[in-house]
Amino acid sequence: MIYVIGIGPGHPSHMTYRATEALSESQVIVGYKTYIDLIRHLIDHKEIVENGMKREVERCAKAIEIAKTGKDVAVISSGDAGVYGMAGLILELIGEQDIPVEIVPGVTASSAAASIAGAPLMHDFCHISLSDLMTPLEKIEKRVRAAIQGDFVICFYNPRSKGRPDHLAKAFEWIKEETAVDLQVSVVKDAYREDQAVSYHTLLNMDFDVVDMTSLVIIGNSTTLRLAGRMVTPRGYAL
Amino acid sequence: MIYVIGIGPGHPSHMTYRATEALSESQVIVGYKTYIDLIRHLIDHKEIVENGMKREVERCAKAIEIAKTGKDVAVISSGDAGVYGMAGLILELIGEQDIPVEIVPGVTASSAAASIAGAPLMHDFCHISLSDLMTPLEKIEKRVRAAIQGDFVICFYNPRSKGRPDHLAKAFEWIKEETAVDLQVSVVKDAYREDQAVSYHTLLNMDFDVVDMTSLVIIGNSTTLRLAGRMVTPRGYAL
Repeated sequence: MIYVIGIGPGHPSHMTYRATEALSESQVIVGYKTYIDLIRHLIDHKEIVENGMKREVERCAKAIEIAKTGKDVAVISSGDAGVYGMAGLILELIGEQDIPVEIVPGVTASSAAASIAGAPLMHDFCHISLSDLMTPLEKIEKRVRAAIQGDFVICFYNPRSKGRPDHLAKAFEWIKEETAVDLQVSVVKDAYREDQAVSYHTLLNMDFDVVDMTSLVIIGNSTTLRLAGRMVTPRGYAL
Repeated sequence: MIYVIGIGPGHPSHMTYRATEALSESQVIVGYKTYIDLIRHLIDHKEIVENGMKREVERCAKAIEIAKTGKDVAVISSGDAGVYGMAGLILELIGEQDIPVEIVPGVTASSAAASIAGAPLMHDFCHISLSDLMTPLEKIEKRVRAAIQGDFVICFYNPRSKGRPDHLAKAFEWIKEETAVDLQVSVVKDAYREDQAVSYHTLLNMDFDVVDMTSLVIIGNSTTLRLAGRMVTPRGYAL
C-alpha cells in the first residue's frame, strides 16, 4: 500500500486527521528532507527514507520498490500532494502495476497563504508555477497573460529562487502589459511555519526582495481591494 | 472572536486539527444547514445558528452581531472557507470594526475531488464557478476561453443546478471553440461523503446528466491522460 499524503502548510495543527492516521499506518515514510523535518516528531521509530531537492523520481521509485515488498509506505508532500506534489509521479511510475494507492488530500499552499493574507481567493483564481525546470518560460508567459486576460486572481507557486531570481519580475512586466489596473499583491512567506511573514504590495509598488522559494505570491483581480489592512476579493454579494 | 472555518470536503477525517479545535473553542456555530449537518456530531450542546442557501449575508451579519456580545463564534464553510467561502464576506462586513478574526483553512473541493479522480492538478490549473448569481455569464465565458488559451487544467465549481442546467454544456461549447484537443474530463460527486461517485469522460464524449450541484468537474490540459483508469496530468519529469 502507498499513501501519498499532503501534510498541509507545515504546522501539525493544519494537517488532517486522515493524514496523521495514514502516517501512523505506514511502516516507511518517504520524503524530501525539509518536509520530513516538519513531521519528524510524528514518525518516531518509523523507517525514514529522505533525500534532497530535485530527486523526486528516485524518491517515488524507491517508495514503489518498498511497497512491492509488502510494506505500507507513506510518500509525503507539503500542502496538498495532488497540487504540484508527488501524487502524479507515483501514479505515473505505478502505471498499470497492481499496487493500491490512497491519495490523502491536504491544505494546499494557496489556501494557507490566503487565510493569512485575508480573503483574496473568493473569486475565480489560478495557480501558476514560475519554475521553468520542467515548463518552458514561453508557456509560463502565455499562461500569465491568459490569466490576466481572464481577470483571474493568480497564485504564483515557486515564485523566486537563486536559480531563477528574475522570473517574478518578468511576470510582473507581462501583467503590466495586459492590464492598466494597479492590482493588489500579497506575499506570504512560510505560512504556518516558524518564520511566517505577510506583506502587501501592488503591481506598481512591489518589493521583490521579500520573496523567496518558500513564499507564495497572490495577485488580485481587478476588483480586489485592501480592507482594514487585509487583501479581500469581493464575491459580489450586495451588502 | 470569529473563527471562519473550512471544514473540508465532508468526512470528519479530512478536517484539520485546528478546525476541530476552533469549533470546540466556539460557543456559537453559524452555518448553512447542509454543512452544519456534516459536523453536527462535533458540536453537540453548542448554540447553533443555521439557515438556508442564498442567505449568506444574513448569516455572516448574525455571526458578527453575536461576536460583538463577547461570545466566540465559528462560521463554517465546506472545503476551504477562503475559496468561494465565507471568509471574504465576514471581512467585508467587519470592515474597520475591531473584531478579531481567525480564518482556519481547510481542504478545498478541488483537492478533495482530484485525490479521488487521480492526479489531475499536477500542473497549472484554475478554479471557475459556473454560477451566474453574482457574475455575469459573459465574464464567465471570457474566463473559460482564457483558461483554455492558457492551457490550464480547469476545476468547475457549481457546475450545474436546477436553476442553471445548461451552463456546463455551454462551457463545453466555448472550450471546443478554443481547442481541437479532445480533453480528458472527470466528474467527482460528493467527495468523501456518503454518495461519493467518480466518472470519466472527454470533451467530445460527455454525460452532463451525472453532474449536479455537489459535483466538481475537472477538465484536463492538453497533456492530461487516462492512466490505469485514473486521470493524470504529467508534471513533466523525465521517467
